[in-house]
Amino acid sequence: MSLIFKTAALIGRYQSEGVAESLQAIAAYLAERGLAVLLESETAAAIGRQDLAHAPAEALGTRADVAISVGGDGTMLGIARQLASQGVPLVGINHGRMGFITDIALDHWREALGAVLDGSFRSENRTLLTARVVRDDQTVWEELALNDVVVSRSSRAGMIELQVEVDGAYMYNQRADGLVIATPTGSTAYALSANGPILHPQVSGIVLVPVAPQSLSNRPIVLPDHVSITIRVVEGREPRVAGDMQVFSDLQTGDDIVIQRAPFTARFLHPEGYSYFATLRTKLNWHELPILRKPVPENL
Amino acid sequence: MSLIFKTAALIGRYQSEGVAESLQAIAAYLAERGLAVLLESETAAAIGRQDLAHAPAEALGTRADVAISVGGDGTMLGIARQLASQGVPLVGINHGRMGFITDIALDHWREALGAVLDGSFRSENRTLLTARVVRDDQTVWEELALNDVVVSRSSRAGMIELQVEVDGAYMYNQRADGLVIATPTGSTAYALSANGPILHPQVSGIVLVPVAPQSLSNRPIVLPDHVSITIRVVEGREPRVAGDMQVFSDLQTGDDIVIQRAPFTARFLHPEGYSYFATLRTKLNWHELPILRKPVPENL
Amino acid sequence: MSLIFKTAALIGRYQSEGVAESLQAIAAYLAERGLAVLLESETAAAIGRQDLAHAPAEALGTRADVAISVGGDGTMLGIARQLASQGVPLVGINHGRMGFITDIALDHWREALGAVLDGSFRSENRTLLTARVVRDDQTVWEELALNDVVVSRSSRAGMIELQVEVDGAYMYNQRADGLVIATPTGSTAYALSANGPILHPQVSGIVLVPVAPQSLSNRPIVLPDHVSITIRVVEGREPRVAGDMQVFSDLQTGDDIVIQRAPFTARFLHPEGYSYFATLRTKLNWHELPILRKPVPENL
Amino acid sequence: MSLIFKTAALIGRYQSEGVAESLQAIAAYLAERGLAVLLESETAAAIGRQDLAHAPAEALGTRADVAISVGGDGTMLGIARQLASQGVPLVGINHGRMGFITDIALDHWREALGAVLDGSFRSENRTLLTARVVRDDQTVWEELALNDVVVSRSSRAGMIELQVEVDGAYMYNQRADGLVIATPTGSTAYALSANGPILHPQVSGIVLVPVAPQSLSNRPIVLPDHVSITIRVVEGREPRVAGDMQVFSDLQTGDDIVIQRAPFTARFLHPEGYSYFATLRTKLNWHELPILRKPVPENL
Repeated sequence: MSLIFKTAALIGRYQSEGVAESLQAIAAYLAERGLAVLLESETAAAIGRQDLAHAPAEALGTRADVAISVGGDGTMLGIARQLASQGVPLVGINHGRMGFITDIALDHWREALGAVLDGSFRSENRTLLTARVVRDDQTVWEELALNDVVVSRSSRAGMIELQVEVDGAYMYNQRADGLVIATPTGSTAYALSANGPILHPQVSGIVLVPVAPQSLSNRPIVLPDHVSITIRVVEGREPRVAGDMQVFSDLQTGDDIVIQRAPFTARFLHPEGYSYFATLRTKLNWHELPILRKPVPENL
Repeated sequence: MSLIFKTAALIGRYQSEGVAESLQAIAAYLAERGLAVLLESETAAAIGRQDLAHAPAEALGTRADVAISVGGDGTMLGIARQLASQGVPLVGINHGRMGFITDIALDHWREALGAVLDGSFRSENRTLLTARVVRDDQTVWEELALNDVVVSRSSRAGMIELQVEVDGAYMYNQRADGLVIATPTGSTAYALSANGPILHPQVSGIVLVPVAPQSLSNRPIVLPDHVSITIRVVEGREPRVAGDMQVFSDLQTGDDIVIQRAPFTARFLHPEGYSYFATLRTKLNWHELPILRKPVPENL
Repeated sequence: MSLIFKTAALIGRYQSEGVAESLQAIAAYLAERGLAVLLESETAAAIGRQDLAHAPAEALGTRADVAISVGGDGTMLGIARQLASQGVPLVGINHGRMGFITDIALDHWREALGAVLDGSFRSENRTLLTARVVRDDQTVWEELALNDVVVSRSSRAGMIELQVEVDGAYMYNQRADGLVIATPTGSTAYALSANGPILHPQVSGIVLVPVAPQSLSNRPIVLPDHVSITIRVVEGREPRVAGDMQVFSDLQTGDDIVIQRAPFTARFLHPEGYSYFATLRTKLNWHELPILRKPVPENL
Repeated sequence: MSLIFKTAALIGRYQSEGVAESLQAIAAYLAERGLAVLLESETAAAIGRQDLAHAPAEALGTRADVAISVGGDGTMLGIARQLASQGVPLVGINHGRMGFITDIALDHWREALGAVLDGSFRSENRTLLTARVVRDDQTVWEELALNDVVVSRSSRAGMIELQVEVDGAYMYNQRADGLVIATPTGSTAYALSANGPILHPQVSGIVLVPVAPQSLSNRPIVLPDHVSITIRVVEGREPRVAGDMQVFSDLQTGDDIVIQRAPFTARFLHPEGYSYFATLRTKLNWHELPILRKPVPENL
C-alpha cells in the first residue's frame, strides 16, 4: 500500500492535562500505520520522549509532509504560522472544547485521523497576512498572522490614533482602543468580540474592525484581500502590534505597519463531512434554535 | 470631434423641488453638446416636456448609450435595476444631500458631466442580485436588486423564522424581524442600520444581516458572491420580500426565496477624482476626526 | 392552619402539548390544599373542564388572591396586563424552556408551588407602562405593557420617522424600522434583540431602543421612569403600535403615542432562592463560559 | 448688591493654545465683578501669574464657593474629582469643541458666566463612584470617578477574566479586553464606544459595559446605583484599573476592586436654557436629522 503521507510532524500543547497521553497514543498509531513520526522539540521534551525523532518547529516543514496539532486553536495558529511557507498541510485535533479550526474531537481522533491518512479528507486553503513594522524606512519587525494583526494602545492610555491608507489612498483616522485586521479565519476570533462580521473562508476579503472606536459610525469594513494596508501610529501611549495575539512588537509614534496577504496559504485537512456552518452553529450556540421542520443536507 | 456617447437617457425624481428645472437645464446642455436626449416617459410627463423624445424606462436601454439620473440614491437604484441587463452606464447627479451612489453634486453638474462626456471618468461595476420566489416549484416573482433583498415580518407579528441554505447546505434558522441580503453597494444602506459591516465594492461578497435577531450570536456573515442562497419561510405573519425596498412581494409559509448574483452588473461612471473612501467619510461623518498630520493621496 | 391564599386563578396556554394535563394536575393539587380554584374561561373550555368554577380573565382579579400562569413568558405577560391593576400576585410555571419571568420549571412545580403557598417566596414588583394613542386630542386606544411598547413601520415601507419628546422637551427625530420603549422586564425581550442594554428590575428606568436606526449614533437611551414620553408619527407607511407584541393599534401620521409608568405594578412571587442573575446566565448562555481557575500560558 | 458667590477658583488646561489668554480675561472679569479669584497653582504657574492668589487643587475647595474650569471635559473631570467631596459647584467653559459636561462655549463665556454669577443657572447633581482595590484584606488604592472605573488587560495579552459580584451575589465571569463601570455622566464617554447605552443623568443607575467580550451575549447591564460591585481579577496579564482614564493602579491576580456610589455628588451649574438632549444631539450628530415639521419646546 502506498502512503499518501510519509512523515508526520506532531505538535502538542503540553500544559493541558492529558495531552501527553494523547500525543503518545497518536505517535504510536502513526508509527503503526507506517509513518515516520517527527515530534516538535518542545513537545518531545514536555512529554519526556526525546528518544523519539524530533526537530524544532521551524525545521519541521522541510522534513514532514503533514503536521498534526493536538490542543486548541492557539496551538494550531502557532504551528500554522511556522509551517505555512513550506506548504505542509495541517490536521487539528482539539483537546477540550471544539475549536473553530481544530475540528477533530479527541474522542474519535483515531477514526478521523485514519480516514485523513487514507486520503479521505477535504483540503482547504486559508489566507495568511504578513505584517511589517517600518520605522525610518527600515523594516524592524515582520511576522505572519493566520487570524489577525492587532494594533492597540496600552491600558494606561485612553486612546490610540491610527491613520489608515489602502493601496496608498487615505481611508480614515481611527481613534479607538485598537484596530483588528483579520482574515476570514480570524473573523470568528477577536474581531467577532469587537463586533466584526463573520467572513466565510472562501471570501477573498480582509476585515478591519475598530475596538471601542470613538466615532460611533466607524464600522467594520471589509476590503478585497489583494490590497496593501498601511497603518500609521499618529498618537498613543505604549502602542503595540500583535500577530494572532501570540507575537508582539512595541511601536513608536510615526511607525507604519504594512499589512498584506501572504504569498502562500495555510492548508487545513478536514475529515469528510466537515461543515464550516456546523462549526459556526456549535461554537456560536446557533444549534439552540428550534428544531428544523425538515432535514436539509449538510455538506458545504 | 467624435462623441463617446451618442444618446443620453435622462431620468429624474420629479417630486423633489427644483428637479424639473435641473432636468431642463441638463437636457439643454446635452443637446448643445450634440447628444440625442431621451427622457424617461414619466420624467417627461412630470416636467411637461412630452414634446421631447421620450420612452418608458424599460425601453431606454436599447436606445441610449448612457443614462443620467437626477435625484437621490433611490432614483438611481430604480433606474439601475431597469437598465443593468442592457449594460447602459449610469451617471448620478444628486439633488439634495450627496448620496452613496449619486456622487455628482448639483452645484457643479455642468463641469462634472462635461468631463464624463469628454471621456474623463472612472468606470465601476457593481454587483446585482436576482431574487426569485419559488412556490410549489413555480417561480411566482422575480426581481433584481442593486442594494439588497429583504425578507421580513409584518409589524403585526413578533418574529419571522427563516431557514437558510447556501449552495444546498444548511446554514441556520434565523428568528428575527427580518433578514437583509446585501451587495457591497447595499452594505451602506439598510444593512448598515441593522449593524452590518461595510463591504468595499471590489469585495466579491454578499452579506447576510439579521434585523433584531432573537439569538444574540446571530451576527452578520459575509459569503462569497458565487453562491446560491435559499431562504425558506418557516413561520411568520404577513411575510414579505423586498428588492431595494422598492419592489415587493407577499410571501407564504413554505415559500423559498432564491438569491444569486446576477449575470450582469450595473456600471457607474464617476468623475475622475472619485474616491469611495471620501464618500464614506462624508456620509458617515468620519470627516469630523482630528485634522490629518500630513496630507496623503486620495484616489483609490 | 390558616391559608395565605384562599382562591387561586389558573391560566394556561392551551395550545401547547401537555398543558391540559399539567393544568388538571395543578388544579387538583390546589383543591387538595384547600384552595378554591378558579379557571380562566378560555382555559376551562380548552381543557374541557367547564364543570369547574371559571371566569373570564378580566374578572379573575376580583375573586382570586393569587394567579398561576402555566405556559411561557407570553402567557404570563398577557395575564399580568389583565390582573395588574387589581394587585393580584402572579406565579409563573413554564411549560417548555425556562422563561425570563416564568421561573418555576414544570419538572418540580409541586415542590415549588407548595413552598410559595406556604408563604415561602420572594415578592417582586415590576414596572408596567401605559400607552395611549391620541388623535385630534382624543384618546383612541389605550393599553398596558409589561415588556414594551413598540412603534413600527410596515414591511412595505423603508422607514418610519418619529419625533420624541420627554416631559414636553424635544429629544430627537428617529428614522428607523421602529422604536421600542421597554421596562426593565422588557429589556431582555425584543429590546435586547435590537441591541438594547439589560436593565436590572430594580432600576427605575425606561429604555428607548431604536430598531435599525438610520443614524448610526442613535443609541439606546435610558430615561428615569417618572417621565412622560410622547412619540409623534411624522411619516411612515402603515404605522402601528404594539403592547407586549400582543395588543396592536394601527396609527396615522400625526398621531401621538403617550407613554408613562402605570400607577400600579405587576407583582411576581418567586420561590426562595430565585436569582435574577442566575436567570440571565441560563437564558443568555453566560454559564457556558469556561471557569478558569489558573492561568494557562500560551507559548508554543 | 450681595454676591451669590464670593470666591471663584479658576482652573485651566494650560497646554491648549489660547487658554492662558482666556484665563487672564476671565480672572479680570471676575475681579471686576467683585469676586475674589483663586487660581489653581499649576494654572497660575502655566500662565505666569503666580503674583495672583493661588492654591493647589486639593485646597481650592475650602476657600472657593464656585470653581470655573476652562478647557475640555478632561479638565472638568479632574477638578470635579478633587472638589466634589467639598460640595463646590462647577462651571465648565470649553476651549475647543463643545464637551458633554463643559457646556459654555468660549465664544460667549462673558454673557453665560455673568448670568450664572447673577444666580441665573440650573444646578445639577451628578453621581460619582468610589473605587477601592483590596489586596489581602487591605485597601491598597482608592479613587473617585465621575465618568467611569475601567478594569482592563494589557495590550500584551489576549484577555482578562473578571468575576463580578453585586451586593455579594454572583453575577458572571467576564472574559474581555476590559470592563467599564460607568455613571450616567460616563455613559457618553468610553462606555458609549464600547457599545453601552446612554443613561440620562437623572437615572439612578450604573452601567457595566464589557469591552470586546468573548461571549457575544455579554451585553451591557444597568444596575441600580445603590449596589456594591466587586470585581475580582481571575486572570490577566498586567491588569490595571483606571478612574476616569486619568488615575491608574496596577492590579494583581486575586485583587478585588470594590465600586460604590460616592456619598456626595458633583454639582454642575448650567446656564439657563441648558438642555441635556440638545447636548446629545450636537455631540452625536443627531442634529443632522431632517428638519422638524413643527417646533417643540426645548427645556428639559
